[in-house]
Amino acid sequence: MTAATAKPASFSEDNSDDLVIARMASCPDARLQAVLASIVRHLHAAVREIEPTEEEWMAAIGFLTETGQMCDDRRQEFILLSDTLGVSMLVDAINNRKSRAATESTVLGPFHVAGAPHRALGETICLDGKGAPLVVSGMVRDAGGAPIPGATLDVWQANDDGFYDVQQPGTQPDMNLRGVFTTDAEGRYWFRSVKPLFYAIPHDGPVGRLLHALGRHPYRPAHIHFIVAASGYRPVTTHIFPEDDPYLDSDAVFGVKDSLILPFELIDDAEAAARHGVANPFWAVEADFVLDRA
Amino acid sequence: MTAATAKPASFSEDNSDDLVIARMASCPDARLQAVLASIVRHLHAAVREIEPTEEEWMAAIGFLTETGQMCDDRRQEFILLSDTLGVSMLVDAINNRKSRAATESTVLGPFHVAGAPHRALGETICLDGKGAPLVVSGMVRDAGGAPIPGATLDVWQANDDGFYDVQQPGTQPDMNLRGVFTTDAEGRYWFRSVKPLFYAIPHDGPVGRLLHALGRHPYRPAHIHFIVAASGYRPVTTHIFPEDDPYLDSDAVFGVKDSLILPFELIDDAEAAARHGVANPFWAVEADFVLDRA
Repeated sequence: MTAATAKPASFSEDNSDDLVIARMASCPDARLQAVLASIVRHLHAAVREIEPTEEEWMAAIGFLTETGQMCDDRRQEFILLSDTLGVSMLVDAINNRKSRAATESTVLGPFHVAGAPHRALGETICLDGKGAPLVVSGMVRDAGGAPIPGATLDVWQANDDGFYDVQQPGTQPDMNLRGVFTTDAEGRYWFRSVKPLFYAIPHDGPVGRLLHALGRHPYRPAHIHFIVAASGYRPVTTHIFPEDDPYLDSDAVFGVKDSLILPFELIDDAEAAARHGVANPFWAVEADFVLDRA
Repeated sequence: MTAATAKPASFSEDNSDDLVIARMASCPDARLQAVLASIVRHLHAAVREIEPTEEEWMAAIGFLTETGQMCDDRRQEFILLSDTLGVSMLVDAINNRKSRAATESTVLGPFHVAGAPHRALGETICLDGKGAPLVVSGMVRDAGGAPIPGATLDVWQANDDGFYDVQQPGTQPDMNLRGVFTTDAEGRYWFRSVKPLFYAIPHDGPVGRLLHALGRHPYRPAHIHFIVAASGYRPVTTHIFPEDDPYLDSDAVFGVKDSLILPFELIDDAEAAARHGVANPFWAVEADFVLDRA
């Protein structure tokens, strides 16, 4: 065919990303432009490396479409995809750089509820009576080791069947296994709960099928969620994990950090149980949190 | 907190992709494993470069979700996203590497219909009578220049209002502006149509909003689609573009290649018009196609 003259470079495997990025030259939003340029560079680099067949490309289109269509008010399959590909934890790490002393963060997850009830130290958060009794205690300190009185700990976890209260409205009591505690004058806190168990993330959708195809399981190791905050300090969103969990090395959402794995001890001591108001034997864990100054 | 012993490396900004890829070690499908490893590498590299805030990450989740939810039987918003980010054309380029002599490929697009009517040379494909008359003619040859008799040209285009027949069922005649032609003993073909016009891709969804936010328009330059095929040769899926179109340098889907831009000539010659069976004046384009051997 006859080529016309004075056209810009024709599309090719080598310049494809340059051409797409050049087309954003008049974007009025500098941040959006930079973000999309980075996405286009890396997306084209991945396509060049993968060399997908047209059938594979179409399978990717179908997977993304189905992932969007799986989402509704109670299910967010793209967050699940982000979680299971380690992206959510990477975004968390980037947004929560800390001093070496401070408690490490991990993902918030989709089950936090704002406005959980404030409870007195020593109260239980378990309202359905299921599970092995657990006493959680510890301190909140600053990076220099000084206790922080009046710090709040917003705590939540799944119940003994592996579900959060918001996943089972009508089945679990409202605000089951949730509560906000405040440290005492010595920076100490303690409350009663039940030992958390591992559970599966929702895996009846495209992300679950992808995990299966990749030879991966859908389990998260047992954990208790915390948001620890105090006036004048940077809050931390994190978990604690019992060290005896079988999925610590293979959390489906990559949420485990070594420093967050703690020994949960089984205590057989009738007197101590009575003092804590739990049945004997009971589990106990000590979890201290360290906050950076704001 | 007390760290447990003998755990694998803890998640960090530096090793996030390594940890995710290591988790696929027992994937039974080597191709899927390689594809996902590449996706994870580039995805994490993009996130490290972009350093999204948690709000930006959530905006990305929302965009992908909405893109999936925009899709139905008649609309494929993720293909549109792939098209407008140049990914569809890159996949096309990778899957259609050719000799220097062969006609270049471009995207198939979503509007091809299998089973268009076979038509005799010289027939028109325009069934709605709208638009400026056009005569398309040319040859199909091999890479050495020898004509290929019996080659088929599957042809389709939008009508004078900028829509394909399948976008307007009931409004346009069935199979409007579609037809399959076969080259004669000298490898020649010719048919009648109307001069194509530029048109907008669907832009009332999230992809249209992204284009707008990026300072991009949603137009594709005028074009006629061809799939040219012959026994013993590799078929080519391509377009031809009139050289007078205002969007040749900014096709919303990056489908233009220099070699596919052709002069469309306006001919004022009553005798020639009568010979071709078109009104005077009329447009004419000569488009030759070159196929590589299979």
